[in-house]
Amino acid sequence: MAIEGLSINLATVRQQYDMRQAVEACLKQDIVAIAPWRDQVHKIGLSEAARIVADNKLKVTGLCRGGMFPAASAEGRAAAIDDNKRAIDEAAALNADCLVLVVGGLPEGSKDIAHAREMVADGIAAILPHARSSGIPIAIEPLHPMYAADRACVNTLEQALDICDLLGEGIGVAIDVYHVWWDPKLDEQIARAGAGGRILAHHICDWLVPTTDLLLDRGMMGDGVIDLKRIRAEIEKAGFFGLQEVEIFSQNNWWKRPGEEVLSTCIERFRTVC
Amino acid sequence: MAIEGLSINLATVRQQYDMRQAVEACLKQDIVAIAPWRDQVHKIGLSEAARIVADNKLKVTGLCRGGMFPAASAEGRAAAIDDNKRAIDEAAALNADCLVLVVGGLPEGSKDIAHAREMVADGIAAILPHARSSGIPIAIEPLHPMYAADRACVNTLEQALDICDLLGEGIGVAIDVYHVWWDPKLDEQIARAGAGGRILAHHICDWLVPTTDLLLDRGMMGDGVIDLKRIRAEIEKAGFFGLQEVEIFSQNNWWKRPGEEVLSTCIERFRTVC
Repeated sequence: MAIEGLSINLATVRQQYDMRQAVEACLKQDIVAIAPWRDQVHKIGLSEAARIVADNKLKVTGLCRGGMFPAASAEGRAAAIDDNKRAIDEAAALNADCLVLVVGGLPEGSKDIAHAREMVADGIAAILPHARSSGIPIAIEPLHPMYAADRACVNTLEQALDICDLLGEGIGVAIDVYHVWWDPKLDEQIARAGAGGRILAHHICDWLVPTTDLLLDRGMMGDGVIDLKRIRAEIEKAGFFGLQEVEIFSQNNWWKRPGEEVLSTCIERFRTVC
Repeated sequence: MAIEGLSINLATVRQQYDMRQAVEACLKQDIVAIAPWRDQVHKIGLSEAARIVADNKLKVTGLCRGGMFPAASAEGRAAAIDDNKRAIDEAAALNADCLVLVVGGLPEGSKDIAHAREMVADGIAAILPHARSSGIPIAIEPLHPMYAADRACVNTLEQALDICDLLGEGIGVAIDVYHVWWDPKLDEQIARAGAGGRILAHHICDWLVPTTDLLLDRGMMGDGVIDLKRIRAEIEKAGFFGLQEVEIFSQNNWWKRPGEEVLSTCIERFRTVC
């Protein structure tokens, strides 16, 4: 029987499986929702990936990822916009709930984060008509402030929602507990997102103490300090009852374990601590 | 001739020097303002530290650090308050401009960050009368969100200023660029802090890309992505023209170099990029 409410972001088992293998391993444990990364899709080919999704009636809670808009040159910014339009097409082919954006950080050599943020808003505005006509909602994922320089200069839910309000329909947020759990304005901004119909995805993992690497030391739910049930309750109070998507980058722990063990642990923790 | 506008937080050379040696090295390069840490003061004794400060007419831009209020037990919280009162006495003996607070994170085993934040506000409220009567302003230092779990659950300038507004006179903020540079509301909150007379200290260093350690990989000014001149201009626009205090924790670079080189580099960068 299908496990309700749980999705696996395939980055969680990217060292163990390609997309085809990951889907097989998920199905074996009755997981019927996934979120693939574009490199995983490209490796097996978009049409094959779409076939796997359709044949197995998988729910795709998101495609990771578009974004990376800021660039030093106009050519670089135009290339990013083109690439994001392709990502929208891929998300449509996979019947994904949304395209998740990691918006990008400072261009090489720049210290002007305000300008980077303008380039992000401009880039999203440029792709939004194509997203709307393709029926693919755009989900801005505010990333933890420790990624402001090199990955995403949108760093709080409030900031992401300000961009959404600026740009109108067809755009919302992916709320990843890892990035936002610390925010003193979290509850207030979750409520705001819900009221505006802006919650498109809910990603889960945990914040480890200590955290030994800025990027690749995320914890399994329950192994860290994030109050997952409380945040989930706030998100549901705001009207979002979508799936919780597990996304764990863990070079020294979960990426080194057998994929079946990682998936079964996700299920067990999802049922007990999320 | 004394170098105007520059202070050295002695953590910057903590692996090279004790407080006495650090002061000698600073004076040799005409640096006449410092900010010691309590363990450095305790190691040579408070009266000796106070004598060194007085005899050399040093400006002390802050004493690091009070705080660490949240604790699982009432005894633990009371002990933290007692310790903070002693820190105020030490700051007074050293004629420091302020006592800097690193407020503390989650108590052992807790996931309740809202409660930790309440304990912080309660703890500061408990020490504030003693700080006022001692003539020592209390400077809340909002720490980067990556320290929310284990060091400080006050993570934005906005949040710190909300606490200040709650508690009244005798309290303000230490603005450390490392912790706040990413904040989309930085300029607005610097202006708010200045309007309220709340800016008590201005700490500088740089954010390296990549950053290899969450705590001990801070960069020398100019080696990272923080627009130091821009932030300084915002702080001055807000009415604060106090010293810029260099605070660098750098286990694999600056802590391994000769102290004289570190100090001369601080001077050179202070003059060129800050």
